[in-house]
Amino acid sequence: MATGQLSALFTDFYSLTMAQGYWKQSHSHKAVNSRRAVFEMFFRRQPFGGGYAVFAGLGTLLDRLTDFCFAADDIAFLHSLGIFEDGFLDYLKTFRFSGSLWAIDEGTTVFPREPLIRIEGNLIECQIVEGMLLNIINFQSLIATKTRRVWLASGKGSVMEFGMRRAQGLDGAMSASRAAYIGGASGTSNTLAGKIFGIPVLGTMAHSWVMSFSDEGEAFTAYADLYPDRTIFLIDTYDTLKSGIGNAIKVGKKLKERGMNFGVRLDSGDIQYLSTEVRKLLDNAGLANAMITVSNELNESIIETLVNSGAPVNSWGVGTHMVTGGEDSAFTGVYKMAACEDADGRMIPVMKFSDNPEKTTNPGIKQVWRLKDSNGAALADVQALDSLTPDGRETETFVPGSRYRFWHPSADYRHFFHTIEAPPQPLLQQRLADGKPCMPQPSLSEIRTCSVSDFDTFDSTYKRLLNPHIYKVSVTEKLRDLKLGLIKNNLGDL
Amino acid sequence: MATGQLSALFTDFYSLTMAQGYWKQSHSHKAVNSRRAVFEMFFRRQPFGGGYAVFAGLGTLLDRLTDFCFAADDIAFLHSLGIFEDGFLDYLKTFRFSGSLWAIDEGTTVFPREPLIRIEGNLIECQIVEGMLLNIINFQSLIATKTRRVWLASGKGSVMEFGMRRAQGLDGAMSASRAAYIGGASGTSNTLAGKIFGIPVLGTMAHSWVMSFSDEGEAFTAYADLYPDRTIFLIDTYDTLKSGIGNAIKVGKKLKERGMNFGVRLDSGDIQYLSTEVRKLLDNAGLANAMITVSNELNESIIETLVNSGAPVNSWGVGTHMVTGGEDSAFTGVYKMAACEDADGRMIPVMKFSDNPEKTTNPGIKQVWRLKDSNGAALADVQALDSLTPDGRETETFVPGSRYRFWHPSADYRHFFHTIEAPPQPLLQQRLADGKPCMPQPSLSEIRTCSVSDFDTFDSTYKRLLNPHIYKVSVTEKLRDLKLGLIKNNLGDL
Repeated sequence: MATGQLSALFTDFYSLTMAQGYWKQSHSHKAVNSRRAVFEMFFRRQPFGGGYAVFAGLGTLLDRLTDFCFAADDIAFLHSLGIFEDGFLDYLKTFRFSGSLWAIDEGTTVFPREPLIRIEGNLIECQIVEGMLLNIINFQSLIATKTRRVWLASGKGSVMEFGMRRAQGLDGAMSASRAAYIGGASGTSNTLAGKIFGIPVLGTMAHSWVMSFSDEGEAFTAYADLYPDRTIFLIDTYDTLKSGIGNAIKVGKKLKERGMNFGVRLDSGDIQYLSTEVRKLLDNAGLANAMITVSNELNESIIETLVNSGAPVNSWGVGTHMVTGGEDSAFTGVYKMAACEDADGRMIPVMKFSDNPEKTTNPGIKQVWRLKDSNGAALADVQALDSLTPDGRETETFVPGSRYRFWHPSADYRHFFHTIEAPPQPLLQQRLADGKPCMPQPSLSEIRTCSVSDFDTFDSTYKRLLNPHIYKVSVTEKLRDLKLGLIKNNLGDL
Repeated sequence: MATGQLSALFTDFYSLTMAQGYWKQSHSHKAVNSRRAVFEMFFRRQPFGGGYAVFAGLGTLLDRLTDFCFAADDIAFLHSLGIFEDGFLDYLKTFRFSGSLWAIDEGTTVFPREPLIRIEGNLIECQIVEGMLLNIINFQSLIATKTRRVWLASGKGSVMEFGMRRAQGLDGAMSASRAAYIGGASGTSNTLAGKIFGIPVLGTMAHSWVMSFSDEGEAFTAYADLYPDRTIFLIDTYDTLKSGIGNAIKVGKKLKERGMNFGVRLDSGDIQYLSTEVRKLLDNAGLANAMITVSNELNESIIETLVNSGAPVNSWGVGTHMVTGGEDSAFTGVYKMAACEDADGRMIPVMKFSDNPEKTTNPGIKQVWRLKDSNGAALADVQALDSLTPDGRETETFVPGSRYRFWHPSADYRHFFHTIEAPPQPLLQQRLADGKPCMPQPSLSEIRTCSVSDFDTFDSTYKRLLNPHIYKVSVTEKLRDLKLGLIKNNLGDL
């Protein structure tokens, strides 16, 4: 489920009907599947009304892509539908993703409309992987972004992912644990995610533990005897202040005598009020080191309010909102054709116009460059052409010390001049060549560490929960000229 | 992923730490794991501000429960954490769910606070399955409910589930396809869900298909040649009215000459305006049978508005909102202990009080009865005790013609008298006995058919999108007395 092979039938049905069309075209006038194309994955708007997103899911995607294939019973299922030719089904029997893939590093802070992933391959393979690619990247990026917001709101504190029971299905839980860890969670309650991804597993106790004893104090004593070095008492089964905290103090004092610390968990009621009262009672009992953990439908706004109001909370158990995105339950990633080989073998830039201006795409094969100042602070991202000519691979580059004009990606009249300080970083790195990995996959904790370092290069104005500063994602003059040219040609036709 | 064994490590970590506690208790004074308990799964509030929910996921849960176990490397992982005893790990090696399970039929219309699932087993197994049970039922019930709302808003029309690319992970897509089908979707774009669940697979074409040709008309012709009996032209790649519909009519007329029908799909712009204009153009071209399919971030409110405004739409492609729940991304299902065996072997009703009154549970082993009038219309659900005495299984029953007093589950003073008309239906049916299925699992299409029939027994006032009539879920006098007694005892203690 979280590992292992995924059937290539995990694809939108139209990908297969179109694939058969591409197969027949190639078959009729060229060697099978030789016509190539470039697709890009990008997203349209920041989730949660925020100023940034954290790109996640790449490791999962690469694992899946390298073993994406059709089993014999998948082919039999397609055959049963009665619309696929035997020749095409024979082709699918040996289908493997053989394209090349460039991607921004997993965990990087990313922005709307810039390519996060670029795929070059034959039309069939580019099309068949669309649904899976979007599914994986959209979900994990949503959750990594949400978790980053929660973690930042907590003052970069201790955030535990407790979402399995409210996650959207089995992989909704597993992938959320992975993405939340990248985003900043310290651990997960999902034991299987601990095993598969190496994430620390954490937990407290359930109300049912307390209810299975005739007395709350007896339940706490039994738990403390079992796990003296990792006890967190859930104190709201009956009444937090009148019953739970008193019993926790009684048992906690015995733990302290044995040199152990402990914690209490609040799971209902007003957290600011109860955490303050509980803190006082613990302190007065000489238990100043005892930790307070809270949970109960937390999200980044609630946590920010509690932190700002000085609620004495040591760690946060966050479930539903962090593993589903809460009110914003999908990342707006799309996968669009950027260039396509013509009959003469030239790679021609293409774009989608659409009746919604915000759905219009940027044409051509692109690289994303991150401009930084001499102190390493991120200033803007720029999309540039990575292939200036249809038959070649001449790439736009930037010379430190030189001055360039960069354009707003859609509002024609807006631009800015910028003199390059530090040598800019190309964000898209090749990860697959002809379907094979071309660099080692970093570990999840390496991704997490790099993600936080990268995030630190952005000014805090981009990170406000409400109405943040908009980070610039611009286009070079050459890319703008290409786009305007295509628009002019197309409008001329209509 | 959608089938196959699931590791029992897919459990909240606290379930395992508590399980070790229960194991040690039993070990010390009784045969291992002999202490029994009853847990109930219920939900707290209707999603989407609606008046009903559609219970889904039971089939998936039963499949998973019957083969939920720990593999050797799962045990090795637990061992590596250093907090589990060898004896307990040996116990887990042969762990299987051996409890009994009662559930409401999958697809049934259900309401807050009534038990949807009841499990009786030893404390360990009851606890270990919690996370998985909630994960599966919460998500599928959310999606079945959302889809029912979408389907009803469309006038019980043709709704296609197109959500894979925005779903929350791989199983977020697979389980959503299953649940959406129960809820009323006609088919899915997810090819693997077609294979695994037998759901019809559907699709149109992508913008990339159109962009891979130098001309839109050429792209449509090529597709119509391939699939003359199932062509839906995506007409917004360049401009719906100035380009797309004209090309669709040109190619569609040739299809008509061959005796074939076709459709067009709108994926951007104002749907009411464009569908009306497109309908006119199709009709004027003598193509009155051509279908109009629409998509683009649809939800039940948008669809209801379009239907009410008379937009000439024949079918609806719904993705993001239907497969994630949109703004309400989690179902509020919880799993709480209702009774627990004491040292003398008596099953004692228990309840959780909590600092939030809405988190207070109903104690005891319960059945849910659906009261109907003589025409079969649903009137109210009543929770009754299914085990009146700690040592027995005497069940509350209702005699047609007799008059009963039923109580509001939390507001003490509210009650109503009701004379039973039709013999009431007990909704909870036993599905597992000692871990083994005790009735055959209906097919997905049987579940879907029964779900719609059941839904039809509810008045339309409960089905309004906005501010619906609240369906009564009451408790019997005996259950109310039990609860009040426990509250009185407990408050006395505090």
